[in-house]
Amino acid sequence: MLRAEEIKPADGKLGVLLVGLGAVSTTFVAGVEAIKKGISEPIGSVSQMATIRLGKRTENRSPLIKDFVPLAKLEDLEFLAWDIFSSDAYEAALKAGVLEKELLDKIEPELRGLKPRKAVFSSDYVKKLHGTHVKQGANKLELAQQLIDEIQQFKAEHGINRLVMAWAASTEVYLEYNPIHDSLESFETGLLENHPSISPSMIYAYAALKLGIPFLNGAPNLNLEIPALRKLAEEMRVPVGGKDFKTGQTLMKTIVAPGFKARMLGVNGWFSTNILGNRDGEVLDDPESFKTKEVSKLSVLETILEQEKYPQLYKDLYHKVRINYYPPRGDNKESWDNIDIFGWLGYPMQIKINFLCRDSILAAPVLLDLILFIDLAQRCGMHGVQEWLSFFWKSPMTAPGLYPENDLFIQQTKLKNTLRYMMKEDLITHLGLEYYHEM
Amino acid sequence: MLRAEEIKPADGKLGVLLVGLGAVSTTFVAGVEAIKKGISEPIGSVSQMATIRLGKRTENRSPLIKDFVPLAKLEDLEFLAWDIFSSDAYEAALKAGVLEKELLDKIEPELRGLKPRKAVFSSDYVKKLHGTHVKQGANKLELAQQLIDEIQQFKAEHGINRLVMAWAASTEVYLEYNPIHDSLESFETGLLENHPSISPSMIYAYAALKLGIPFLNGAPNLNLEIPALRKLAEEMRVPVGGKDFKTGQTLMKTIVAPGFKARMLGVNGWFSTNILGNRDGEVLDDPESFKTKEVSKLSVLETILEQEKYPQLYKDLYHKVRINYYPPRGDNKESWDNIDIFGWLGYPMQIKINFLCRDSILAAPVLLDLILFIDLAQRCGMHGVQEWLSFFWKSPMTAPGLYPENDLFIQQTKLKNTLRYMMKEDLITHLGLEYYHEM
Amino acid sequence: MLRAEEIKPADGKLGVLLVGLGAVSTTFVAGVEAIKKGISEPIGSVSQMATIRLGKRTENRSPLIKDFVPLAKLEDLEFLAWDIFSSDAYEAALKAGVLEKELLDKIEPELRGLKPRKAVFSSDYVKKLHGTHVKQGANKLELAQQLIDEIQQFKAEHGINRLVMAWAASTEVYLEYNPIHDSLESFETGLLENHPSISPSMIYAYAALKLGIPFLNGAPNLNLEIPALRKLAEEMRVPVGGKDFKTGQTLMKTIVAPGFKARMLGVNGWFSTNILGNRDGEVLDDPESFKTKEVSKLSVLETILEQEKYPQLYKDLYHKVRINYYPPRGDNKESWDNIDIFGWLGYPMQIKINFLCRDSILAAPVLLDLILFIDLAQRCGMHGVQEWLSFFWKSPMTAPGLYPENDLFIQQTKLKNTLRYMMKEDLITHLGLEYYHEM
Amino acid sequence: MLRAEEIKPADGKLGVLLVGLGAVSTTFVAGVEAIKKGISEPIGSVSQMATIRLGKRTENRSPLIKDFVPLAKLEDLEFLAWDIFSSDAYEAALKAGVLEKELLDKIEPELRGLKPRKAVFSSDYVKKLHGTHVKQGANKLELAQQLIDEIQQFKAEHGINRLVMAWAASTEVYLEYNPIHDSLESFETGLLENHPSISPSMIYAYAALKLGIPFLNGAPNLNLEIPALRKLAEEMRVPVGGKDFKTGQTLMKTIVAPGFKARMLGVNGWFSTNILGNRDGEVLDDPESFKTKEVSKLSVLETILEQEKYPQLYKDLYHKVRINYYPPRGDNKESWDNIDIFGWLGYPMQIKINFLCRDSILAAPVLLDLILFIDLAQRCGMHGVQEWLSFFWKSPMTAPGLYPENDLFIQQTKLKNTLRYMMKEDLITHLGLEYYHEM
Repeated sequence: MLRAEEIKPADGKLGVLLVGLGAVSTTFVAGVEAIKKGISEPIGSVSQMATIRLGKRTENRSPLIKDFVPLAKLEDLEFLAWDIFSSDAYEAALKAGVLEKELLDKIEPELRGLKPRKAVFSSDYVKKLHGTHVKQGANKLELAQQLIDEIQQFKAEHGINRLVMAWAASTEVYLEYNPIHDSLESFETGLLENHPSISPSMIYAYAALKLGIPFLNGAPNLNLEIPALRKLAEEMRVPVGGKDFKTGQTLMKTIVAPGFKARMLGVNGWFSTNILGNRDGEVLDDPESFKTKEVSKLSVLETILEQEKYPQLYKDLYHKVRINYYPPRGDNKESWDNIDIFGWLGYPMQIKINFLCRDSILAAPVLLDLILFIDLAQRCGMHGVQEWLSFFWKSPMTAPGLYPENDLFIQQTKLKNTLRYMMKEDLITHLGLEYYHEM
Repeated sequence: MLRAEEIKPADGKLGVLLVGLGAVSTTFVAGVEAIKKGISEPIGSVSQMATIRLGKRTENRSPLIKDFVPLAKLEDLEFLAWDIFSSDAYEAALKAGVLEKELLDKIEPELRGLKPRKAVFSSDYVKKLHGTHVKQGANKLELAQQLIDEIQQFKAEHGINRLVMAWAASTEVYLEYNPIHDSLESFETGLLENHPSISPSMIYAYAALKLGIPFLNGAPNLNLEIPALRKLAEEMRVPVGGKDFKTGQTLMKTIVAPGFKARMLGVNGWFSTNILGNRDGEVLDDPESFKTKEVSKLSVLETILEQEKYPQLYKDLYHKVRINYYPPRGDNKESWDNIDIFGWLGYPMQIKINFLCRDSILAAPVLLDLILFIDLAQRCGMHGVQEWLSFFWKSPMTAPGLYPENDLFIQQTKLKNTLRYMMKEDLITHLGLEYYHEM
Repeated sequence: MLRAEEIKPADGKLGVLLVGLGAVSTTFVAGVEAIKKGISEPIGSVSQMATIRLGKRTENRSPLIKDFVPLAKLEDLEFLAWDIFSSDAYEAALKAGVLEKELLDKIEPELRGLKPRKAVFSSDYVKKLHGTHVKQGANKLELAQQLIDEIQQFKAEHGINRLVMAWAASTEVYLEYNPIHDSLESFETGLLENHPSISPSMIYAYAALKLGIPFLNGAPNLNLEIPALRKLAEEMRVPVGGKDFKTGQTLMKTIVAPGFKARMLGVNGWFSTNILGNRDGEVLDDPESFKTKEVSKLSVLETILEQEKYPQLYKDLYHKVRINYYPPRGDNKESWDNIDIFGWLGYPMQIKINFLCRDSILAAPVLLDLILFIDLAQRCGMHGVQEWLSFFWKSPMTAPGLYPENDLFIQQTKLKNTLRYMMKEDLITHLGLEYYHEM
Repeated sequence: MLRAEEIKPADGKLGVLLVGLGAVSTTFVAGVEAIKKGISEPIGSVSQMATIRLGKRTENRSPLIKDFVPLAKLEDLEFLAWDIFSSDAYEAALKAGVLEKELLDKIEPELRGLKPRKAVFSSDYVKKLHGTHVKQGANKLELAQQLIDEIQQFKAEHGINRLVMAWAASTEVYLEYNPIHDSLESFETGLLENHPSISPSMIYAYAALKLGIPFLNGAPNLNLEIPALRKLAEEMRVPVGGKDFKTGQTLMKTIVAPGFKARMLGVNGWFSTNILGNRDGEVLDDPESFKTKEVSKLSVLETILEQEKYPQLYKDLYHKVRINYYPPRGDNKESWDNIDIFGWLGYPMQIKINFLCRDSILAAPVLLDLILFIDLAQRCGMHGVQEWLSFFWKSPMTAPGLYPENDLFIQQTKLKNTLRYMMKEDLITHLGLEYYHEM
């Protein structure tokens, strides 16, 4: 990996390829436009607002991350989107119901200008949706080629320097491993033969990687993990990231569970329920899509709590996650967690957490940060899975054989120390004995 | 500070001097006895149950902390206590109502054997309590001398090797700085003249430090911070720690607030209320004692959220803490927090946390860990404030001029890296790039 | 119906036939024994503890209900039980985990004396249970006859005067209407031919009614509503009651929903989730049993809120009920309700209710009251559905063509005015103008 | 009292005199205007939306209350207001922050037309407020006379037929009984001599009653209860009502507590906390104003639960109410209740209720109903305390010697049966035996 002065500069335009122009994408784009106009601050964005401490506490060096590492500027982002409905970003944002009309009206021209291309889609993979703005093609390979052509045309027309693609569409049904996933050859044959084990999200990822474009998987869908695509990423030396933007209940879990473990408090039950009323809720009401999501949501506690290492504390943990479609909640999402913990002498305690949350509001800055950081990674010569970006994922990918790190605070240390490492600054260990003792 | 092979061994008996034999102390002692008998595991104790990762993840070296650093063994602990009531530890535990009679009966002989000495006490400093088992003396200096004599006698009679003293009694009224606090001379004059700015907890701390014994301040009382005692600790080269055991609502705050900050989510309101029914609740119903506690509880968010560094996110934070005496809750404690956060484009979200907590169950293992770690610190030649033990304190003391670290996860990193440093192991930075990239 | 002096006296023993000796039955029996011994008060029992106001407020006549109407005395209750396990009531109570051993030990002899008979059972109707203590018989008619014989023998041996039977066992799978349910003849043919549309609870009800014994259906199972059994009850002039003891979340719903309606507040969403860990939870984890329960739980709001009468307020109500098996909760049950209401100018508000409940503790006094009141009804010459006992049922039965009354407060008025009517006292209308105006 | 055909008709205009033009008044007026324009339904108003069942259930007679009794029409309401700020109703509504600008803009002309007169005010009675739009006068009698003159002028100018005055302003400090309250003579002397025991709300009430105008006391202030004003109301044969509009947490209490009592469940603890951020919150942050409110809020449970009648269930009830000023909540109000109940064999259970409430949204329709019903009462010849309107009050006034009825459901029965009595319809007893038995 390249460091400091060798990192390629963030010059020119960065093309952002959005798969799906729904609640998350429109909230993201609207936010970027509002920030560019000075209407709002980039709240929730680590790349834009967080500082990074350098050196000793007494040095008082804490620049903004965006002033420390060479990131693309918001002014240099250029958007392209695909969606299964033809609404432009303004209409789509109104329909999503996340942002108030009053705000959207201030950036209407910018949003109107973003009109989605037809999507690669089949309701075999998202049972509850019925798209009307969908690409036609003889087979899945042809569909992939259509995507590639559109991207190249977009790049040429807008004088784009670099690109990043992000899946910000629905959760697909749970797909099992299939031998055609094994090699690039078998996968491309599968594309040609319309193999059912190839989902739309795999087609998008394939198109991106073929062009050497980093791909971010914002849903729990299976795609980047299949050997064919993993190898393609390596071969093309492209960094990738996934999966599932970390928001809502899982965000809270990866905050709270590390606290219990830090204090060696046992946990014997964790019941999580969610109510949500938007398209996402409707999609997840389908048991097959829910299964994909459930696998992503359940794994979080295991890796944080390390049941094998602490059997007295965590081996009997009963963890249950439920998602309920509940239209009165609209685009908002609400979770209720009951956590049964135990302490000294086994005495039980309970914690209940009720989160009145807005999923897209939490997801949008994550999407921004991931786009900017993975572009940075590519300019540093990094490729494959980017573990240092685990911070942003509900279910972070890892190198084969390594367990994922789900603890938000270890993830944060990893993120910031990686940035320090890139820029040749000392890593922070929080030892701090030098302030107290001759060492 | 001494490292690895030079650290003095944890041989012989460690005398534990407990100020107060109420809910926390009896739960602690009962637990230690139950663990020694194999009735229970030391749940909640970092020193006993936590592991510490050494080297790279792939090395799989994660010994228990107690097998890694030379700590005193539970079998070597010997207890002495002072209390304002004459009940032995068995009766006091029954009265405290934390532990079930069925459990206490199994260790009745051990608990019966711990009979408290008369306490140094005046209801001027804890308005709601009226002790009956209280030392008499011509002045405060004489009272201190009585404590010193009792400690020396205890040490001699039981063949004690080393000692630690811990304040596990009530919160005293809020005391302002007074010039007699400035130097050891003026303080000792104050003792002699019964100066009202010298509280019982200062007298205990003075007695301990005069004997070179580490002192732990488990309540928010003012004592170790006054210059007279700080200098005495330096002079005697004694490590000290405070203040206020981190439990309940504040524990949750120092878990959750770092999560919001990590994700750059704004916080504009945090309302915390508590209901508790025991002696502690009664004491804190007195506005003067509550003020001491409030100062301790309020400061937590400021230092975690760093309002000056992130004014757009935290400058308008309205933080309110309430404690309510509510007898139906008995010894249990319950908190309800309402947290108003905001994200992307300023959109608001809410989080409500209801913690059905048991304070003494959370405090007891903290007390154990602090005793064992501060004894270790002394054997390493460390003295004065032990910032690396911030993890255990609601309101950690610091060196003058340094802000306290309240983020539980930074505190944990600090704790573990200090242990690694003592034992000459590499510090952990969570960089982990070596698993992914040639470096 | 007979009134006042004509009501037959409550002389002699009242035999209580309990179908199921699980959590509810053992809690009920243990409680009755504890109350008889003076260990406890009959908390939660309207028949034992409630008063009834008679005449004007200024008359100050408010006798206990049990002193006002002629009820059987607790001393006169004699128990018989059937269960699919052979444990006696002491062992069964320990296993149920509702009551503490310390309490059970005080009434061990009484509980040991209650040994269940073999049950009529088939796991076709309760999928998750596998009984070991089950009657054998050539067909369902023969099983019914075995029950009849056991009841008659019990009556003779113990010199029983009157009897009541109560179903206090599990929820059966959802059964659809079948033509064999139509007449007594077709039903008895069905019994002989082992028809699958005849469940064990129908067999118990049949046996009771054939003997002229009132039957109480404490679960949401279909039995008393089928025409065959309804006609049998009428023919034998037996009062019956059902269904599903009103406890927990539904109790709260029938308290809270009438409040919203009283104030003409709209409700557009009600999400109810439950976590429970006992046998009941396991049974309801089976979708077929859950369906039976769900139908019972969902209907409550409709009849209270009267959507047809108040379409502007309630026509869009989205009501969802979930039950989750969650072993860490043990026998306790916990519910969380999110209620979306709206007021003046359509402005939304939210209410969250978290009930840390004990189901059997709520059910036991309901069972007691129903037994005593239905025995009273029989002595008053009342038969068929007893609408005045709706107060105690989650899903009250009604005369054909009448809607059920689910509002707890109307149910209470109905209950008390019926008692006043029986005893020839004035009904209470709460008019009260006489205290303020000449009328 | 007059009945049916003798009730005077609701002809002509009804003048509504609003003391205070803050959140409640503007929400009320805006709502009335929006309803008149067909923009909204009168959600939350019993007089406008509720039906009343007449006769037997099988008769299906359930007219709207407003079609059953002769009430004034919304079209006939004419408003006059006093406030300590000069903002018109449009500006005041914007400032109150309850209703959205989008809605207010649709009725701007109507709201602009309502400009408040200068208020009778002194910050001696509401410590936290500092009014700028305040009447001057030589003494309190002169101030009362100014009010009387303004009312008579308003009546004449607008051709008003009848009038009602309502206090919709802040809670005043707690006032003790003083001998000058005893007779009209001493009270008028007090007015003349500026006696400090005469608060502004007493001056308004005096002005109204002198003119024979019904007075509604929407805050917990002491006024109508003092003998001088009670006698004046009787003498003038004017109906009056108070006190404190029933909203929020107390509304929930009077819904839920009757449910516990109906089921004979014990209650040993009830902790209620509130967070609110508007002017009301600021006023109640003053301990003297809070005391007035606390007395009003605490009494509710006592009269519902009848501790003397049910000592085993309620004598140990520990009830605590807290109100906290919390600016982030804005005009909304949020309450959290912890309720400790116990059932069969004394086993404890807990209920937590979190109400995300909007106080003015709940208060506005109550104000409307009270205005319309007290005008009806006057036309029926009723005077003095109107117990049948207890339904709408947090702390209902009663005839001397009678306890207040706080149970919402008894209050509702009382309200509806009074309407039936007025109109010579049968009172409803919910007996209903006629549907099941020959009687």
